[in-house]
Amino acid sequence: MKIITISREFGSGGRELGKRLADALGYAYYDREIEAAIAERTGMDIRYIAQMADRNLLMTIPLHFGQTFNSGYVQKQQLDILVEKQRVMKNLACQSDCVIVGRAADAILSEYNPFKIFVYADMDYKIKRCQGYAEVKEHLSVREMEKSIRKIDAARSQYHRLFPGLDWGNREQYHLCVNTTGLEIKRMVPPLAEYVRNWFANRTSP
Amino acid sequence: MKIITISREFGSGGRELGKRLADALGYAYYDREIEAAIAERTGMDIRYIAQMADRNLLMTIPLHFGQTFNSGYVQKQQLDILVEKQRVMKNLACQSDCVIVGRAADAILSEYNPFKIFVYADMDYKIKRCQGYAEVKEHLSVREMEKSIRKIDAARSQYHRLFPGLDWGNREQYHLCVNTTGLEIKRMVPPLAEYVRNWFANRTSP
Repeated sequence: MKIITISREFGSGGRELGKRLADALGYAYYDREIEAAIAERTGMDIRYIAQMADRNLLMTIPLHFGQTFNSGYVQKQQLDILVEKQRVMKNLACQSDCVIVGRAADAILSEYNPFKIFVYADMDYKIKRCQGYAEVKEHLSVREMEKSIRKIDAARSQYHRLFPGLDWGNREQYHLCVNTTGLEIKRMVPPLAEYVRNWFANRTSP
Repeated sequence: MKIITISREFGSGGRELGKRLADALGYAYYDREIEAAIAERTGMDIRYIAQMADRNLLMTIPLHFGQTFNSGYVQKQQLDILVEKQRVMKNLACQSDCVIVGRAADAILSEYNPFKIFVYADMDYKIKRCQGYAEVKEHLSVREMEKSIRKIDAARSQYHRLFPGLDWGNREQYHLCVNTTGLEIKRMVPPLAEYVRNWFANRTSP
């Protein structure tokens, strides 16, 4: 099975890159599908799952997994979601070649030897990109937007610390790091797809 | 003018990647040509220039350029070579599209907005690659080879500190970071060449 994981800085276009890469390669693309599968299985609201998994968990769990947690129902539910998310992701990954964006897929699916991409960009470009999605961030000033981007990335980085030995954004942990600054992503995807194809055909060791 | 700079960890195959990329794109390739040009101009021995520029300089210049140097003829000559190297590189870069490997070309040629690649690999792979060049390193054990690789990379990193604001190997300073672990480089070059072509055609901001 060929799996591509996309880790990305907020605003760098990693999601678009992942979607287009999946289309170019004919792979399945998994994003919100993961939370949807958990919602279907557990009966919980999908937005609640996304919020619980992506945000609150990070604020209540200490840096190193295995240390004492604050007890309580919320923490228990958060951990349940985390465990369920890992199960769903492994299940999806076994079904077909796929691209999975975010969700620490690089860590969770490492046993499947995925091709790991990290997508990033200069702050000015990320802000400009975010401004293009006006419905989401139109009430924010540039300064506030930068702060918001840094906060989200800090949460992503912290989320990865749940997985021992992982360091979000550290190039050594990826097969390719792509700087999207100033680029129209759709024009960069065809050579990236070809690179990934060659990687899967060519790699001699995990 | 289209310029590609290759920074690389020792043993990662960055030089091979740079040469093959230049061939694929029809660009000039500059490597030892830079020291050769200095040798021709100054009458100094090319090996002496390479040694002076790449090694001794690093041991005598403090971490931050601008601090006091140890005085003396050798230091003066080292600085002269550094200045001359910058002049030669800028001169070559203006002559035709080119690939320049190492030599802090990413920093020295930044005004020309080069496409900056960083090439790296897992330590085991770098050692294996180095063992392939038996004539150079055959007397070294694996442990000694690892030590040697780390030492050379530390020198490269330190050399970049001559240029304010630069941090060798920090992905943010590159357009693409390529992990060559387990790969046959010649098979990865065609999509990389296509990526670079698209980058030069596509970038909307420096």
